[in-house]
Amino acid sequence: MNVTRLWFEDLAVGQVFEAGPVAMPRDRIVSFAKEFDPQAQHTDEEAARATPFGKLVASGWHTAAASMRLMHEAVIKRFGGGMGLGVDELRWMAPVLPGDVLRGRITITATRLSASRPGFGIVTMLVETLNQDGKPVMRMKPSSLVRCRE
Amino acid sequence: MNVTRLWFEDLAVGQVFEAGPVAMPRDRIVSFAKEFDPQAQHTDEEAARATPFGKLVASGWHTAAASMRLMHEAVIKRFGGGMGLGVDELRWMAPVLPGDVLRGRITITATRLSASRPGFGIVTMLVETLNQDGKPVMRMKPSSLVRCRE
Repeated sequence: MNVTRLWFEDLAVGQVFEAGPVAMPRDRIVSFAKEFDPQAQHTDEEAARATPFGKLVASGWHTAAASMRLMHEAVIKRFGGGMGLGVDELRWMAPVLPGDVLRGRITITATRLSASRPGFGIVTMLVETLNQDGKPVMRMKPSSLVRCRE
Repeated sequence: MNVTRLWFEDLAVGQVFEAGPVAMPRDRIVSFAKEFDPQAQHTDEEAARATPFGKLVASGWHTAAASMRLMHEAVIKRFGGGMGLGVDELRWMAPVLPGDVLRGRITITATRLSASRPGFGIVTMLVETLNQDGKPVMRMKPSSLVRCRE
């Protein structure tokens, strides 16, 4: 991996990491939704018109998975194996449309040593997912276990 | 759809809906992770041994997407188009392994009329995702807009 390894001790509140782009093509929006979230607004252009969205939009879980990809590229792969603990305050703020291109901005918001897992710290991040116009479409606050320097 | 439609007025705190099963085959665990969460513990049996998991496990986002599928089958499709607002307190409690079969238990935990969207209510659910042994692997508290009876 041609990136600098990040240990728990390297992470500090206020650090910002940028990631992307990742594309959201129409075909993948539909196929993801057919497997995991087969609502009319995600799977069928015609039927989507009768929904509150009025058009085809990506499943929020597709946007969340794409946001994980962005987190991975910018931060998680540099942990050499993080362990996701959970996510707080996930919010879908604007629809993601076919052809949108997403970027991520990840800000470290809290760090502390793990009480139950010696050798690991717990890092909390604010992940903001933006479309090609810079408009926020999703945000969330995931926490991960990160190895301490040996 | 051969199911009874649910309007906002039909939903009450304490109602429980059951869903599943949904399978988590090894090939899909790996292909999902290669697209969205390409960490060693999700994509490569050998490399997974050196991670804190010690073996191949599903991405938490794959489990979350599968949990959306369970929610859809049990509840969301009966809304005739819900709109996901967000999720609180998503927690991954135990690893999901290749071949696991997941079920969902969805409990209505709060209902209120939407202040900003006339004709809609906001429903909050506790979603518990369990494996074939009944062990909880994930839980979360999503909120959705649901249409009121016309």
